[in-house]
Amino acid sequence: MTWLYCLSALVVLSTSFVIGKRYEPNWASIDSRPIPAWYDEGKLGIFIHFGVFSVPSVGFNSESEWFWNYWKNLKVPAYIDFMNKNYKPDFTYADFAKDFTAEFFDANKWANILNSSGADYIVFTSKHGEGYTNWPSNISFNWNSMAVGPKRDIVGELMEAIRGKTKLHFGLYHCLYEWLHPLYLRDKENNWQTRDFVTKKALPGLYEIVNTYKPDIVWSDGDYEAPDTYWNSTGFLAWLYNDSPVKDIVVTNDRWGIGANCTHGGVWTCRDRYLPGKLQTHKWVNAMTIDRQSWGYRRNADLSQYLSIEEILATFVQTVSCGGNMLMNVGPQKDGIIAPIFEERLGQLGQWLSVNGDAIRGTRPWTTQNDTLTPTVWYTKKASIIYAIVLNWPETDTLKLAAPVSSTSTRVALLGYTGGQFQYQNLPTGGIEIMIPPIAINKMPCQWAWVFTLTNLQNA
Amino acid sequence: MTWLYCLSALVVLSTSFVIGKRYEPNWASIDSRPIPAWYDEGKLGIFIHFGVFSVPSVGFNSESEWFWNYWKNLKVPAYIDFMNKNYKPDFTYADFAKDFTAEFFDANKWANILNSSGADYIVFTSKHGEGYTNWPSNISFNWNSMAVGPKRDIVGELMEAIRGKTKLHFGLYHCLYEWLHPLYLRDKENNWQTRDFVTKKALPGLYEIVNTYKPDIVWSDGDYEAPDTYWNSTGFLAWLYNDSPVKDIVVTNDRWGIGANCTHGGVWTCRDRYLPGKLQTHKWVNAMTIDRQSWGYRRNADLSQYLSIEEILATFVQTVSCGGNMLMNVGPQKDGIIAPIFEERLGQLGQWLSVNGDAIRGTRPWTTQNDTLTPTVWYTKKASIIYAIVLNWPETDTLKLAAPVSSTSTRVALLGYTGGQFQYQNLPTGGIEIMIPPIAINKMPCQWAWVFTLTNLQNA
Amino acid sequence: MTWLYCLSALVVLSTSFVIGKRYEPNWASIDSRPIPAWYDEGKLGIFIHFGVFSVPSVGFNSESEWFWNYWKNLKVPAYIDFMNKNYKPDFTYADFAKDFTAEFFDANKWANILNSSGADYIVFTSKHGEGYTNWPSNISFNWNSMAVGPKRDIVGELMEAIRGKTKLHFGLYHCLYEWLHPLYLRDKENNWQTRDFVTKKALPGLYEIVNTYKPDIVWSDGDYEAPDTYWNSTGFLAWLYNDSPVKDIVVTNDRWGIGANCTHGGVWTCRDRYLPGKLQTHKWVNAMTIDRQSWGYRRNADLSQYLSIEEILATFVQTVSCGGNMLMNVGPQKDGIIAPIFEERLGQLGQWLSVNGDAIRGTRPWTTQNDTLTPTVWYTKKASIIYAIVLNWPETDTLKLAAPVSSTSTRVALLGYTGGQFQYQNLPTGGIEIMIPPIAINKMPCQWAWVFTLTNLQNA
Amino acid sequence: MTWLYCLSALVVLSTSFVIGKRYEPNWASIDSRPIPAWYDEGKLGIFIHFGVFSVPSVGFNSESEWFWNYWKNLKVPAYIDFMNKNYKPDFTYADFAKDFTAEFFDANKWANILNSSGADYIVFTSKHGEGYTNWPSNISFNWNSMAVGPKRDIVGELMEAIRGKTKLHFGLYHCLYEWLHPLYLRDKENNWQTRDFVTKKALPGLYEIVNTYKPDIVWSDGDYEAPDTYWNSTGFLAWLYNDSPVKDIVVTNDRWGIGANCTHGGVWTCRDRYLPGKLQTHKWVNAMTIDRQSWGYRRNADLSQYLSIEEILATFVQTVSCGGNMLMNVGPQKDGIIAPIFEERLGQLGQWLSVNGDAIRGTRPWTTQNDTLTPTVWYTKKASIIYAIVLNWPETDTLKLAAPVSSTSTRVALLGYTGGQFQYQNLPTGGIEIMIPPIAINKMPCQWAWVFTLTNLQNA
Repeated sequence: MTWLYCLSALVVLSTSFVIGKRYEPNWASIDSRPIPAWYDEGKLGIFIHFGVFSVPSVGFNSESEWFWNYWKNLKVPAYIDFMNKNYKPDFTYADFAKDFTAEFFDANKWANILNSSGADYIVFTSKHGEGYTNWPSNISFNWNSMAVGPKRDIVGELMEAIRGKTKLHFGLYHCLYEWLHPLYLRDKENNWQTRDFVTKKALPGLYEIVNTYKPDIVWSDGDYEAPDTYWNSTGFLAWLYNDSPVKDIVVTNDRWGIGANCTHGGVWTCRDRYLPGKLQTHKWVNAMTIDRQSWGYRRNADLSQYLSIEEILATFVQTVSCGGNMLMNVGPQKDGIIAPIFEERLGQLGQWLSVNGDAIRGTRPWTTQNDTLTPTVWYTKKASIIYAIVLNWPETDTLKLAAPVSSTSTRVALLGYTGGQFQYQNLPTGGIEIMIPPIAINKMPCQWAWVFTLTNLQNA
Repeated sequence: MTWLYCLSALVVLSTSFVIGKRYEPNWASIDSRPIPAWYDEGKLGIFIHFGVFSVPSVGFNSESEWFWNYWKNLKVPAYIDFMNKNYKPDFTYADFAKDFTAEFFDANKWANILNSSGADYIVFTSKHGEGYTNWPSNISFNWNSMAVGPKRDIVGELMEAIRGKTKLHFGLYHCLYEWLHPLYLRDKENNWQTRDFVTKKALPGLYEIVNTYKPDIVWSDGDYEAPDTYWNSTGFLAWLYNDSPVKDIVVTNDRWGIGANCTHGGVWTCRDRYLPGKLQTHKWVNAMTIDRQSWGYRRNADLSQYLSIEEILATFVQTVSCGGNMLMNVGPQKDGIIAPIFEERLGQLGQWLSVNGDAIRGTRPWTTQNDTLTPTVWYTKKASIIYAIVLNWPETDTLKLAAPVSSTSTRVALLGYTGGQFQYQNLPTGGIEIMIPPIAINKMPCQWAWVFTLTNLQNA
Repeated sequence: MTWLYCLSALVVLSTSFVIGKRYEPNWASIDSRPIPAWYDEGKLGIFIHFGVFSVPSVGFNSESEWFWNYWKNLKVPAYIDFMNKNYKPDFTYADFAKDFTAEFFDANKWANILNSSGADYIVFTSKHGEGYTNWPSNISFNWNSMAVGPKRDIVGELMEAIRGKTKLHFGLYHCLYEWLHPLYLRDKENNWQTRDFVTKKALPGLYEIVNTYKPDIVWSDGDYEAPDTYWNSTGFLAWLYNDSPVKDIVVTNDRWGIGANCTHGGVWTCRDRYLPGKLQTHKWVNAMTIDRQSWGYRRNADLSQYLSIEEILATFVQTVSCGGNMLMNVGPQKDGIIAPIFEERLGQLGQWLSVNGDAIRGTRPWTTQNDTLTPTVWYTKKASIIYAIVLNWPETDTLKLAAPVSSTSTRVALLGYTGGQFQYQNLPTGGIEIMIPPIAINKMPCQWAWVFTLTNLQNA
Repeated sequence: MTWLYCLSALVVLSTSFVIGKRYEPNWASIDSRPIPAWYDEGKLGIFIHFGVFSVPSVGFNSESEWFWNYWKNLKVPAYIDFMNKNYKPDFTYADFAKDFTAEFFDANKWANILNSSGADYIVFTSKHGEGYTNWPSNISFNWNSMAVGPKRDIVGELMEAIRGKTKLHFGLYHCLYEWLHPLYLRDKENNWQTRDFVTKKALPGLYEIVNTYKPDIVWSDGDYEAPDTYWNSTGFLAWLYNDSPVKDIVVTNDRWGIGANCTHGGVWTCRDRYLPGKLQTHKWVNAMTIDRQSWGYRRNADLSQYLSIEEILATFVQTVSCGGNMLMNVGPQKDGIIAPIFEERLGQLGQWLSVNGDAIRGTRPWTTQNDTLTPTVWYTKKASIIYAIVLNWPETDTLKLAAPVSSTSTRVALLGYTGGQFQYQNLPTGGIEIMIPPIAINKMPCQWAWVFTLTNLQNA
């Protein structure tokens, strides 16, 4: 028996908790903690990137939230040109902060919009690589949302709204490094032999948000330049799992230093927009963006830069089928508005889930992920039902599937369709062929990505 | 015969032009000019509202472009509150101008986006009630787009792009009055017995844009507080029709002073979002907005404030069926970006027109506008074809229409559908009943508002 | 007898007015009007330059109020560099206006400071070459002090304070041309054959300030590129002298078009800082600046750029001695503050006048201006007293003067000195030699520029 | 030559330095270090207050550099009103930083102006109570002069200029506390039982400036709310005196915690503008301001708010006479300009010192400070000369002094006067009476505060 999340063994996660067990600050012990069960249930989280980067809010074939890093560290010409063209010489990144006004930031409105997606949790950027904290931190003097810009506790207001108005879990993103912080740069120059940045800035901040906002998720990032020993990640995680106010519920990820990614910690994020296409042995998450290129809002993203709902569903279905959660990102504007195009995509996903949620929520991966006869079909499973999710409606009047093995009691239906069950027949080569009647457009249960329920398969 | 646009008589408009005829500065003569034929052909124009009002870009249950008027003239509390909350005391409307940066304004990009709608022309706000000119006017010193804000000739750049990159006609909106202009206010106080504002500001501006940009449309507005004699509208129009560089092609509207609206001038606009629901005897236009409430961009408009494509099509179809053009508005952001949600709606309409354009472009109203048996069906006509545009797909497998009288050679088809003609039968009570086969969702020619073509009707 | 101001004839000016005389719009008639007597009495005026130029408030070896002209018309590199270094590209001059805050502008405080100088009148820039009006003009929409920047009627507030709190006369400066006004530039290009700028902008503005603020002085400027016929100067002046609300009291100057300067109009200004050094035959004024180079405030002027009180007095005394008035300029800061260094100079001058005013106010030039034996002595005259103003205290114990011819009743004293009269003796070569007793520093009547009164000279 | 400055015992200072002596972190040991002799020589330092407070640069009957504290901690109505009237709601103090432009800051120009005062050293605010550092500190992320505002190392540039262009010693002011720093506020709430602010912020900053800029003076402030044990002041001073790069030359003051003021440390500052009027037993300094009320620049200070040169000299003379140094403050503007009124006062003082420096530089207090017969006379002493500094020129022709006891070789002269020695006679009541001849104003050595040299007094 293992504490590891074990997809194939269908271990009920919560029972794996040993009451009172204490974790030690080493990976073997940290990794032994099971991921709290709630996390796997909903499959969908909404990621929100909001910060001083929302002021320039541009990205040139790249992320807007990395603006400062692209401009000043990496010296990418497009960013330098943008500044030269639109700002006075000697304009600094910190000068942007004054215009991070957030005058329309309404946490209750956000809560409604985020909730409309049908998601189960959110992850909000408490602090990104710019170092600016979206809460009134004790250790980020005059570089936080109460001191300059919004003059509000953004994290706190959002927490209140999310917990007060919705059933969404509330998670926080926290970036360990700060690209331009002099202590970080000095530690880096010292080959991580000094740790001033960690002890004075990174860890105090992490403890602050956990103690203050009690997040259900601690989504770490910005770890990858230094070893986990530099960050003292296992030390922090041991505290988080043993003694923090969220020790029983909190979910973390794997971005805790060189070598941790895709190997240690909680949920594995591996790389951004991770979509392996096959079943994974460890709980993982596909952190992806509706804006194809950016996590922070990009004013210069036109419609073609936004994923269509069809593209979102294709990603989502594949992710869930392979055992992952999807963490889909929206980037609010500097004035605190979530642009209508984001609201539309969130709502479309929520609308789809309202019909097809049974095929997602609470499911587990099946033995097969996508079908070999019809490769755009992806499977999930819950109890005795196998869900075959069809990304493209069949061109012909049958749908051939290789994976299902029918039993005599097997039944086939279309989720949300009120016109009754469908006929099917076994294929000589194995699998089944479902007979699809013509269904008028206004009788279809939804407009994109339809779900066939296969009940009582022999191989469910 | 008359110079009036005459819908039922199918007069070919362009032949009504009498070469060399000169118009006199009175309504009888002005009204005798036929509307140039090009205008009626395309049915669809895109309206664009852009100005200093794009800086605050908020509206509180009202138009954002009236910001100044609501705030300072009408003293609407919501506007006053907004200013009190977000700006320093004594902030003036003119103070906004500095932030009208338009740094992402790219006329070629606009041209592409506007063109993607399938429209035939655009109408751009050269000057709104704020008085700010989007061109470097000689008579709006330091209150124009070259002197403060963008430092660019917005009108000129857009004209170049529209004419250079698309086949769209280029029209200009021009607001006669200026809410806060002291000369206007003085003339008003003098009961329009003085005309300083007209002679020094309003008319010189009008002449300037016509002579400089040669617009295909002069869309007048802001006329309604004063008589047309105050504006010397007939004098201007006589010049426009007789001697201006656009005398043969230009289309105007009816907002030329008290009493002119819906009565005199060129195309009748009557009121905003005019949608009479029945055939009109004079060419008219439904000037409407994608944002339900506003012509200028409103940051505070969430998704529910934007018309869905279904709503847009319902409006469009009804408008065209009743002899109108639709002038659909988008409001770009102060940075010159057309928000993705607008781009999406424009593209959806263009996509619909690419399938169904035959039912719109070059059509004339039929004798019947909407059907009495199925009231969500609206008709248009071109040559021998009657187009029955169905806003909602029939719930049952037949569509009953009261208006068509079949002949032996009558044929019924679905525009864009490759599955062949449809059966129909005459109804005992008159009209016909079309048999609708079940069509799979991916065989449908489009997603919204389908067009049945009725060829060779007896009463076409 | 003539209407001309006649210095030598000692004509009492006010009696020269012929009641009801009407002036014709030609120079002969205009020039025939005597300068109202009040103007010659006080000798000292304070000039104030305040406007949008007070925002950048820099000059590079040149005037700050010409900023726009230097930058954009004349393209002086130092100005271009300043903008490149400190502002974003495409920053326009009009963009400065928002920062013309004037938050500390307190007209009563100005009145006190200005009054402390002992002056008799002020002249305030109602509008400079930038075209921005310091009053809510009807013809400078959104380019005036009520619409952008201070949000106040600067001219009006100052007028109230000056007239309510002091006995100073209130004059207004008005610049005819506007460097960058498109109508002006077009008229110029048309070789002044068109006059759109004059009829639409320049003259309406002039009439507006005269009718609204009833200035005691109309100080014209910006005339010199065009003939007076372009400006219709004689037409305006005829109205000003015949029918305006200030027809009996108003004083004007000579900047009314090519050829008028130093020749026609009212007081002759000739060139800036005019200091001819000998008696003039027409009433003239030395318009000069405390900041050696600039009329508008210059942040980049260090102490060496400010005239010392000794330099100011040397100029003042010479000016008055030669029949001129001095119009001494201060440039307030954009926030409405008159810098302490200006306040100090004004107060020093006032302090000097409080002791020595008799030698200035109400005086006329004497037959001699400066002495040949002691050339730093300048004379003025009033009734039977000749004032010999000594710029440098005598190095020896006598002061030799060539001009005075003593009589038996001649008495010599030091103005403000309580130690009694001085002995003198006639010089063999003519003139007198005054015996100067040693006077302790704290017994001296003042610190700079002392006045010897010569009573009952033979040649007074 | 004396190392220890010991007023009462007249101990020769230099002998007090024990080579290689190490100081221990207790007051007895710290206080045993003699003040380096250079400090006492020049008597005059110039204090400069420059920071984000230079942006609002207003004070309402109080210091402008305390703006934040008055506004947000102490909630003084005048500051709140100022913000309400001139800024948008929710404007934060950190929002000011963007406008701390310092575009005219020219360290060489400052060096020249400061040097013109005749001073011996300067003290510049490296960091005030606002926490903003005028150098690119490692521990004040995005709240320093390189990151926001000037984008320059102000401290570094000034150090280079002062040391490269003048002989002035370079000192740094450092404020221990930061009014609004959350760690400081938390430590305070914890009754100084926690010391997070000290270990993370205050001390690291102090070490940074000493190691980086090697200041000749460390002028501490902001100590007074907490005990010196909280600040670990003796620990820091022991390092400063034993091991820092400035251990041999550095001078400090007494603001190192409750109880230290006027008791421990280096030079005693006691309270601001300390002017005890009698001889002190420990080296002290009168830190005072040219603007009567403020250290930071105050735009709203009119001329009456600036000390006259007479007032400055009265203070200076009295200070030196009683054994103090004077540290006279100027507040540059946010654009980096030292206002001409400050430049004038500095230059006047320098001009006075160029004549009378002998009576100041290198002097020691005499047995008498101010005279009992003529109380506005203050004494200093150097070698065999006693300097009697007369603030007001005698009203009569003699000056009676009670303190001097003449010898037969006693000589009396006026410093800088070329007219020879003065007669005197002994007074029956003791003291002497000097005969003052009448001296013409232009023969006086200076305009204010004259120095009589009394050589070979019996009681010198």
